[in-house]
Amino acid sequence: MSREHPGGLRENFRQLPFWNPTKVFENERDVEVHQMDLNECPYPPSQKVLAAITAAAAELNRYPDGTCPHLTARLSTATGVPIDNICWGAGSTQLLTAATQIAVDSKEEIVVPGIVWRRFAGIFQALDADTVEVANRQDGSIDVDGLLGAIGNRTRLVIVLTPNNPTGLMLSEDELKALASDVPENVLLFLDEAYHEFAMFAGGADPLPILQSRRTGPWVVTRTFSKAYALAGLRLGYALTSSEAIANAIRLTTSTFNLAGVAEAAALAALDDPGYTRMILERNAEESTRIKRGLERMGFDVMDSVTNFISFDAKQPAAGLVQALRARRVRVATWGYEAHGTYLRVSTGTPEDTGAFLAALEDVLSAR
Amino acid sequence: MSREHPGGLRENFRQLPFWNPTKVFENERDVEVHQMDLNECPYPPSQKVLAAITAAAAELNRYPDGTCPHLTARLSTATGVPIDNICWGAGSTQLLTAATQIAVDSKEEIVVPGIVWRRFAGIFQALDADTVEVANRQDGSIDVDGLLGAIGNRTRLVIVLTPNNPTGLMLSEDELKALASDVPENVLLFLDEAYHEFAMFAGGADPLPILQSRRTGPWVVTRTFSKAYALAGLRLGYALTSSEAIANAIRLTTSTFNLAGVAEAAALAALDDPGYTRMILERNAEESTRIKRGLERMGFDVMDSVTNFISFDAKQPAAGLVQALRARRVRVATWGYEAHGTYLRVSTGTPEDTGAFLAALEDVLSAR
Repeated sequence: MSREHPGGLRENFRQLPFWNPTKVFENERDVEVHQMDLNECPYPPSQKVLAAITAAAAELNRYPDGTCPHLTARLSTATGVPIDNICWGAGSTQLLTAATQIAVDSKEEIVVPGIVWRRFAGIFQALDADTVEVANRQDGSIDVDGLLGAIGNRTRLVIVLTPNNPTGLMLSEDELKALASDVPENVLLFLDEAYHEFAMFAGGADPLPILQSRRTGPWVVTRTFSKAYALAGLRLGYALTSSEAIANAIRLTTSTFNLAGVAEAAALAALDDPGYTRMILERNAEESTRIKRGLERMGFDVMDSVTNFISFDAKQPAAGLVQALRARRVRVATWGYEAHGTYLRVSTGTPEDTGAFLAALEDVLSAR
Repeated sequence: MSREHPGGLRENFRQLPFWNPTKVFENERDVEVHQMDLNECPYPPSQKVLAAITAAAAELNRYPDGTCPHLTARLSTATGVPIDNICWGAGSTQLLTAATQIAVDSKEEIVVPGIVWRRFAGIFQALDADTVEVANRQDGSIDVDGLLGAIGNRTRLVIVLTPNNPTGLMLSEDELKALASDVPENVLLFLDEAYHEFAMFAGGADPLPILQSRRTGPWVVTRTFSKAYALAGLRLGYALTSSEAIANAIRLTTSTFNLAGVAEAAALAALDDPGYTRMILERNAEESTRIKRGLERMGFDVMDSVTNFISFDAKQPAAGLVQALRARRVRVATWGYEAHGTYLRVSTGTPEDTGAFLAALEDVLSAR
């Protein structure tokens, strides 16, 4: 008998550690914890959204329409992307996973910046494809020229995030144009915009019209209702794509019924409540500024984030700082990269969260 | 420049048609339609469940804990499967997809019955693995001896469904024991139990204790809150597995945040309301009997389903019947297999649904 698959698992999947970023420690139950580690919105969904969810919940015995027809029509009108080219995923992770599966064969290549959201590594690990990592520039920004130069004959997918996580930095209009025009037409250009609304609020260049000028090459832009619409728990991301064929291929991999039955109604209600989203973006900008100023007062160089999180070089092991802050009931994150083991990422929260974070950090630093 | 991937897509993913089973036709808006095509529960979630969802919705700005710690602990106690061996997916489809990815390499084999839920074909299409289909027996039941005989050196995964969809038939205790003992220890045995609660209600053999006796070989049992708990729209399925390594591998492929934030609270509330589940199972049995009797009166041989759907050979093209019934506002399903093109599958509904279905079918048949 063949024993090539001990335990029933392929080689890529053996002895994987599982890391649960939402785990609540025993001593954190029933006490206030400042959750500044997952780039969540600190405010609940709007009252209109909650009412829509309650109304839609009575039909949860039925399967949802995963094409979200009303919501898709609305996004199509807003973006100019045809309805058939828009598809839905349970968050951006599922959509990136889909993109790797539909575009990259075994032994082919994915070109990706060296520093991106750390969770992406787990997606790449599951593939037989090769990952070509292009180091970010000294300031942490994505090296677009480097990415373009790394594309070879076996490359099938180029991934960028703008704004990027964990740096918070976005691509310039010129960099977006270079990607749209110079990524070869047989390579899928995947652009994650989980923080799109924050970038627009900060005056960033909108990538979509630039990609729409990429007439001959395939592209995918992903956005989400998780961040600026306060719906991380609803798992509702979408992909704007260059063709119905791409969207259909993604639909095949994400399963027909991949969304919660209340998701479309909630998202429509969120779009109907732009004042609430503006409040979220405005308060985020205020707290982001307060956190940056506070860190600068402590002598840190703070990265120029346009998102709902701020990164900085703490000049000491970040893992220890995360632990020390968590003991003070403030949850923040490391970057998850050994080579950047002194970088901390803190999500914006409420004004109380900002105060608690800055006080706890000062406390930790003064104790050392 | 290489042009091996036109349109940015791998060969498996080109020119895929997309079929949306939940699509509502224009003439079906704002009128009553009898939805008997998707094996949904016809009753809304219980009041306790709806209250739990409303309460949990206020925290949807946060990411959910995809390990569902409270729910998992409860299921672990009920089943004897260790907490670390239980993981969660957005429905059984996601969990089967995960199983194929973690267990089967390119050019290896999956052994599967010829007749299973038709959607599984889409999962296999996305893989570079080969699928070995073993014809079901003349009566529609899964040929367990045939499956075992089809296992070869390249086989890494054996899939069964009990009860099976679309036949509604379940495996016997002896067949389950044969699978548990004779599937080789380097092959993952995947057993889908989406209709578990219905099979138990009908007095079927519980597969789990039998698989738990499979000491040396890996296994996965999937169940769901979609059917007997009236929560199809919540997308909450789970896998009971033989090892933490298997569960962790599945967790890697399903994404850390794959569940809706309200799912765990809703499922716990559903488990706290066993009277409601019993009502669903009892009414299902009643309507199932009424549908079977009605079909038999019309002269059909009806399959011996224990689930919330009934299949029968309509002795004429099922696709035409589905269309004719849908014109009469009754939605039912074909099996989706050309070789069984005269088989219809009708889901149980309310008493009104049963009446509407039987009347519409008589009407269609008398008009021919």
